[in-house]
Order: sequence, then C-alpha cells, then structure tokens
Amino acid sequence: MRITALAGGVGGARFLRGLRAHLDRTPELADSTVTVIGNTGDDITLFGLRVCPDLDTILYTLGGGVHEGQGWGRADETFRVQGELAAYGAVPQWFHLGDQDFGTHVVRSQWLGQGLSLSEVTARLAERWGLPQQGVTLLPMTDSPVETHVVVDEGEGPRAVHFQEWWVRMQAKVPASRFVAVGMDQATAAPGVLDAIRQADVVLLPPSNPVVSIGIILGVPGVRDALRGATAPVVGVSPLISGAPVRGHADACLQAIGLESTTAAVAGLYADFLDGWLVAPEDEGTVTGLPRLAVRGRPLLMTDVDATADIAGAALDLALELKQR
Amino acid sequence: MRITALAGGVGGARFLRGLRAHLDRTPELADSTVTVIGNTGDDITLFGLRVCPDLDTILYTLGGGVHEGQGWGRADETFRVQGELAAYGAVPQWFHLGDQDFGTHVVRSQWLGQGLSLSEVTARLAERWGLPQQGVTLLPMTDSPVETHVVVDEGEGPRAVHFQEWWVRMQAKVPASRFVAVGMDQATAAPGVLDAIRQADVVLLPPSNPVVSIGIILGVPGVRDALRGATAPVVGVSPLISGAPVRGHADACLQAIGLESTTAAVAGLYADFLDGWLVAPEDEGTVTGLPRLAVRGRPLLMTDVDATADIAGAALDLALELKQR
Repeated sequence: MRITALAGGVGGARFLRGLRAHLDRTPELADSTVTVIGNTGDDITLFGLRVCPDLDTILYTLGGGVHEGQGWGRADETFRVQGELAAYGAVPQWFHLGDQDFGTHVVRSQWLGQGLSLSEVTARLAERWGLPQQGVTLLPMTDSPVETHVVVDEGEGPRAVHFQEWWVRMQAKVPASRFVAVGMDQATAAPGVLDAIRQADVVLLPPSNPVVSIGIILGVPGVRDALRGATAPVVGVSPLISGAPVRGHADACLQAIGLESTTAAVAGLYADFLDGWLVAPEDEGTVTGLPRLAVRGRPLLMTDVDATADIAGAALDLALELKQR
Repeated sequence: MRITALAGGVGGARFLRGLRAHLDRTPELADSTVTVIGNTGDDITLFGLRVCPDLDTILYTLGGGVHEGQGWGRADETFRVQGELAAYGAVPQWFHLGDQDFGTHVVRSQWLGQGLSLSEVTARLAERWGLPQQGVTLLPMTDSPVETHVVVDEGEGPRAVHFQEWWVRMQAKVPASRFVAVGMDQATAAPGVLDAIRQADVVLLPPSNPVVSIGIILGVPGVRDALRGATAPVVGVSPLISGAPVRGHADACLQAIGLESTTAAVAGLYADFLDGWLVAPEDEGTVTGLPRLAVRGRPLLMTDVDATADIAGAALDLALELKQR
C-alpha cells in the first residue's frame, strides 16, 4: 500500500513512527511504503547555516536519534559549538542548536551550497537515518525557500518576525495576528510531492499543527488541488483533545487566524478534501455541519510507540473502510 | 614601542606569546604594541565553512585556549560535529575539526557571509580572545581569498592540491614541486598591513615556515617592498636548528623550491630586507656571504613560555642594537 502523509514536526514525526510500527507488526501491510511531505515553512538560516526543524525531527525520530523527552533535537546532545558562538557574540542566542544537530546543518548547508536541491539533500540525510530501508521517503514540500513569518505586536506596533522567533523566543505568547508564508508565491511543489498525493492509496494527516504545519503545506501551489482531486481517502488525526493541543501552540495559531481552538474548527480547515477524521472520544459529537465527513472517536494520546501505532492503525482502518464505500 | 611581526601558525603563535611575555615582564617595554601580519594562504573552505588555521592558532595561543600539546586547535576539545559529518558521508574526512573550533568557523563564515571583510571578522574574533587588552592587533595579510596550492605527483602525473591536503593528508611526504598562491595576483594587502611595516620601530620574523608561511606573506603585493624600505630593523629567528625544523615540514618546503634545508638558505630568502638573524649556536658560523647581516647564536628551542620569552627578548635586543647603529 502506498501511504502519503503531510507532516510537521514533533507530532507528525511521532505519528509516522507509530504508523511505521503499525505497518511492521501487520503482515499484510509490512511492505507498504510511506511518502512524507514535510513542512519547510519552519526553516531558518541561523549562523549562516540552513536549519530545517521539521524535516530533521522526522529524520531523527524515524532514525532513532531523537531526544525522546523533548521530541526534537538529538539524544545525548552537547552544546559546545553554541557555547562558542555565544562567547563570540554571534546572534541569535534564543535558538539552541546541539553539536550533533550542528553536524546536520553544516552538511546540509554544504550540499545546498554545492547546488543540490533541498530534496536531494534531504534524500542524502535520510539515507544516513535509514529511511529508505524502512520504505519511507521524506520529501520537503518545496525546494524553494519558504519561511513562515508571524505578524506580532509587542507593544510597539505590528511587525513580522520569523516563525521560529515567535515559537521559540516568544513561546507563542505574544498574540499573532497573521501568518505569512514568505516566498510561497514563487514556490513550486518539490519533485514527487503532487504525484505522491495523486498516486497514493491512502493519504493521512498526522496530528500536526493545522495552521503552521499542515496549513503551510496546503499553501504550496497544487497541493490542495491534488488533495481535492485525490482518488485515495484522506484521513486526519485531530491535533486537539477537548480544544487543547496535546503539545505545541495550535490553540494560539488557530486564534491568530480567527478560529476557535476546537477539533471541529480544524476539520473545517480541511473540509474541502477531508474524508475521515479521527478525534478524541470526548470530541466525537462536536464535529457538525460536515455531513460527508466520517468522524470516529478514540483515545489520541501518543504516550508511547505502541499507543501511537494503535492510533495510526485506527486512522488506516478508517481510510480502508472509506475506500470500500 | 611598535613591533610588527609576520607570522604563520604554531611556531609564530608560540613566539608571539613569548614576545608578549617578555614585553610584560620588562617595565620599559610593557606598553609596547604588537601588530601581527598573519598568513592566510593556509585558509581553506571545509564543509562550506571558512577555516583560517594560522590566524586561529594565533588567536587561541594568545587567548589561552590552545591545545598546548599539539600547538593548534582548542584545549579540551570534542569531535561530535565531525563525527556527524562522517556519518553523513561529508567530505573531506582528513581534516579534523573540533566542536569548539567549529564555533569559530561557523561564526567567521556567518560574518563573512554578511559582507564583513576578513580583517573585520578577525578583529571581532580577536576581541573574544582578549588581544586588544594585550596590545596585540592581528591583521590577515590580505582580505582577498588567497590559497596556497601545492603541485605534487602521487604517481599519476603532477596535479595541484590545496596546501592543507598536502600538509595534513599527505603529511608533506609526497614531494612537492611547486607552491602556488592562488588568488595572489588579484590580492591587495589588508588595511593596516603596509603601514604596520612602514611605521614599526622593530619588525620581527618569528621562526615560521619560510616558504609556506612567511614566504606567502612576502608575496602579498607591497609587503616585500615595505620591508625593503622599512626604517625599522628587521630581525628574524631561524626556524631551523642544524638544518632540521623544530616542528613542521620546513625542510620539505625548502627542498620543493630547490634550496638546502639550512638556516643560511632561509636567510638568503630574506636577504634583501633582513638586518639581524638569530640562529642556534651550532649554526652561527654557517651563514656566510651576507656581510650586512648581523647573525647571533643562542638556543632557539621554544620549550616553554619563559624560554620563548628569552628568545623573543634576544631578537628584540638584537633589533635595538641594530637601531643604534
């Protein structure tokens, strides 16, 4: 089976690891392939190096190198390079990169500097993390530099900051009034992205941030149209439980675009292409007004790989059920 | 007193530290300033980052951060970034950069990428290492990218490799037939370099490599002429003792340019501007045919800072003696 998933960072990566675990433990699904379309709107150039937080979180999580506690960055990390940068007075100092993580950014920047596309670079990085052996292909949503900027007002009038500055330095506590994907007007989908949606047997939306992760991917020219036209069922997993994000700041992001922080509101964002919607049991009755949407309630806490595999399995079951119709 | 020194890497850096120690322990010289013109021919772009080995060795040595045992790189170093680069298959793998060292190269590359000149970047780096407080100014010989290439023949015909590849990967064991300072034809001396020679009270040549360190600096347009025209005495310290380099591969470099590995041959390279020449006692009678050159013999092993301060003091004494004439 060909599964295509759109994914942001931690939530998406954990879901994908659970999905792969579910496929591996299910004999008739074990040879399935998974194509991941990763958000690159979080990407940022720090200290002259290109950093792709969401892609890296997926690589590290699927490759077994992630820091389990925080969900991103590398396990057993040290911070000596960053310490030197601080001693030299390099800025910014609000984004902390570990030494092993620096290795990724240095080699990525080197290869980009040699003229490789982000797709090509990501494929090389994925090899080191064993994604091909898992049947997983990680595609950046676009090879064009796209950066999500956030319009905020810290009391001195509105100004746009990079998404990472809002997310990391301000911890999403300064109210955002707008998200702008700078560069999207010049962007095209990376090679394979649109075909991965068109040719999929199942399309999954992990519980990633609906605004700044999935929402940004949906803005890549052609992606939303491909989803609308997909022959495969599109099944999503709600990133909210009783209105609260399991992690991250999806609530603040939804508020910024004028929506309530509810699983129904998220489904509304996907209404034009979503076929199935996996929600927490307590949210099951709340998604109304979308008669064609198949809503299923089940526990959605990704407490460990097994629990996450169960959630991914339920999403897949719902997709296969919809496929039968 | 205004002292100007031309310097390569380890030998130059250790001499300069000894010089500073001598000045500090000599009340009438304590407020002397030292301007160092550093070799940048060793510079190389590795993993997309600009590495300036000689400048960094001087910064680390004067700033107290150097690995004493090896004479270059940082004390208490770790190699996690490099380990990641190896895991990703990044090349080259024959140049090992430590994590703290990476901090220097990352911030230098960031600042160069922002449009700062190498002089400006070096001044910023020097601040962190406390050089201004020591009265030491470190100038790169040029802000233009100059790279020393070495013509070698490993059995498949002559080809040019970067100096670092010859020095580090081949350990200078593959015979070199030529050194070419690529980019020198487009280079100009960095701001302050020529004035530092013209306005100096004393010019010193530390026991740096006469071919690939001092020799490269002498090739910067205007430098050799400034030395010839300098009103200050120019005093050098021989990098050879009984024909053998104390460290490094000066012998292989001299052979490559068709010279014997002797302190007399090195003096010959500087004959048009050298006034005083400090040599090991055993070499004192060997420098002939340069009647205007004042040769002094004394132990030249830079075994520790005190011994090196004595050598620097002797060089300075010789210069002051020549000044009286």
